[in-house]
Amino acid sequence: MLSLSSEQQPKTLHWVGDAHGVLRILDQTRLPGELCELECRTVEDVWQAIRRLAVRGAPAIGCAAAYGVVLGLQDEFASPPALLERLHAVARHLAASRPTAVNLFWALERLERVAAAAAPRLSVPELRERIWAEARAIEAEDRAMCAAIGRHGAALLADGGGLLTHCNAGSLATAGDGTALAVIYAAAAEGKRLHVYADETRPLLQGARLTAWELQQRNIPVTLICDAAAAHVMQQGRVQAVITGADRIAANGDAANKIGTYSLALLARAHGLPFYVAAPSSTFDLALPDGRAIPIEERPSTEITHWQGRATAPAGVAAYNPAFDVTPAELISALITERGVIRPVDAPHIRALLAEPPAEARRGRQTS
Amino acid sequence: MLSLSSEQQPKTLHWVGDAHGVLRILDQTRLPGELCELECRTVEDVWQAIRRLAVRGAPAIGCAAAYGVVLGLQDEFASPPALLERLHAVARHLAASRPTAVNLFWALERLERVAAAAAPRLSVPELRERIWAEARAIEAEDRAMCAAIGRHGAALLADGGGLLTHCNAGSLATAGDGTALAVIYAAAAEGKRLHVYADETRPLLQGARLTAWELQQRNIPVTLICDAAAAHVMQQGRVQAVITGADRIAANGDAANKIGTYSLALLARAHGLPFYVAAPSSTFDLALPDGRAIPIEERPSTEITHWQGRATAPAGVAAYNPAFDVTPAELISALITERGVIRPVDAPHIRALLAEPPAEARRGRQTS
Repeated sequence: MLSLSSEQQPKTLHWVGDAHGVLRILDQTRLPGELCELECRTVEDVWQAIRRLAVRGAPAIGCAAAYGVVLGLQDEFASPPALLERLHAVARHLAASRPTAVNLFWALERLERVAAAAAPRLSVPELRERIWAEARAIEAEDRAMCAAIGRHGAALLADGGGLLTHCNAGSLATAGDGTALAVIYAAAAEGKRLHVYADETRPLLQGARLTAWELQQRNIPVTLICDAAAAHVMQQGRVQAVITGADRIAANGDAANKIGTYSLALLARAHGLPFYVAAPSSTFDLALPDGRAIPIEERPSTEITHWQGRATAPAGVAAYNPAFDVTPAELISALITERGVIRPVDAPHIRALLAEPPAEARRGRQTS
Repeated sequence: MLSLSSEQQPKTLHWVGDAHGVLRILDQTRLPGELCELECRTVEDVWQAIRRLAVRGAPAIGCAAAYGVVLGLQDEFASPPALLERLHAVARHLAASRPTAVNLFWALERLERVAAAAAPRLSVPELRERIWAEARAIEAEDRAMCAAIGRHGAALLADGGGLLTHCNAGSLATAGDGTALAVIYAAAAEGKRLHVYADETRPLLQGARLTAWELQQRNIPVTLICDAAAAHVMQQGRVQAVITGADRIAANGDAANKIGTYSLALLARAHGLPFYVAAPSSTFDLALPDGRAIPIEERPSTEITHWQGRATAPAGVAAYNPAFDVTPAELISALITERGVIRPVDAPHIRALLAEPPAEARRGRQTS
């Protein structure tokens, strides 16, 4: 555990050293009170950091898991196939850390695919280097993806508007500027004056602890509200749009995100407000036809019945603590991805955008 | 401060002694961890108990304020008019303790009216006795009102159903069995098997601390959820109806209640579930044509940014903390009062029921 001075710009995660280095993770369970980094040296360290939400947010979980694989391959291996076998076991283990965010599985499958393809022509050290390079690529792409989401989404936000967001879909949820908050940062950078209402997001208060803190750091005006006040804030005309991230999006556009998101989508519809979901293409799970098949993580009831070790409810009371809910596509005004905006949100429009090569490749093709 | 043993059945409030007695109030800010009674000897003690929510819930606030008036009249007075003058000042002071629940003003006005009518023919001690008797009548009627609300509402709840409630509209909010929870207790007493989902109700967790505790004591199955999980619980088919209390109901049926109630009403509508509000006739404010005129109490932002003295949000962050919201009448399936069920909820049906003499008087008339 390393404490950061207040001058140091905290990073959600960063790798230190060569292929035998360590992963440093900002411990988000201690924010905003303390700025501390966890030094992860083993795959188990990363597994625990993901499980207990020291690192959270679908894209950041993907990046952390990718580096977790690198940490899991530090032993000596007799041959590339032996390393691949271990890689498979490590990936399976990391995949069990959290069930809902698909970016986790996406990153692990990508490393397995790349490693399997490269193994026949590389030595063990070269293969380890290749996997490490792919983990770094995932992190770098994540940063670029955030910037592109911000660019595409900024046009949707009006100058002078109030925005409501839920949980944290910001720089703390990614390696870059975030997803939902990247849109806000990009709009603010264009000179738009925005006021953000941040749901505190029970039970773990990511909105209060992370989003409010992050927006403060970036000088974006922010007002914290209780989750249950969102409808009242809409009724009063204080917000003109709702924008959140997502942890998994099915082929038809149904989107799983932090518990309470579905509620906001219904409330936005009732007040005639647009409801936007910002997420990279790695968040889409086209193997699932709709949201009913998305597994919803149920977390310990003590997250509701206790706060910092102290009881907030009577002993022995039952509590139901689903960490996510699913918002039907029909309630989502637009999906904001790094490849562009999907609107209307339905299977054909999603397939069309995701089937296209990335914008960079298209631009390269057009100018060549 | 008096600690109760776990064998003692706690009462929301009770008067001890004669017209010069004291008011004991169960300190709800310490529930469920501690069972403590405040001994209120002055009007200021009662004012503070109401302001800091040691006693809360619209009907209970009305009862506490009535006894607060009695405590404010303990001095010697030269004449009944001198006592009436003090009564007026005391009532004005107590009325400033909280702005939204109309039962507070209703109880104070009732005491002023009764005292003014009785003053010409009574001595100072007799007048004080008369006011104390009226405070006791308010408390006794509150208990009877709870029982009648339960009786009228129980028929609306189906056997085997799941119910969602918000904040605490139970015995801790009244001198009797409660309003929304009285309906549940009455249905359970009829043998209906019910499962209650209790919103924890941020920021002060009345659902977790009070409703879950109260339902446990009464052996009603209860599951605690985060406020933001309500829509998900509805989507899963876990609840068949929503039932809450109210702090003030306008002439057209618009109802102010704990922040988050309006949200639940919209979510119930979206899921095709009935949304019931249970409240005594003293909660109606027919002087207000609709809910827009109901004053909404804004409470300190520290209720959101801190928990038990510890920061849960970054220093200096703005927070907006309205304690109530207003649910439009069109979202309310029925109002459950001690005089009967009002359905559909509109001004003519409300006027019709409230203009009738109470059921007891009607019964008396019919049998005479």
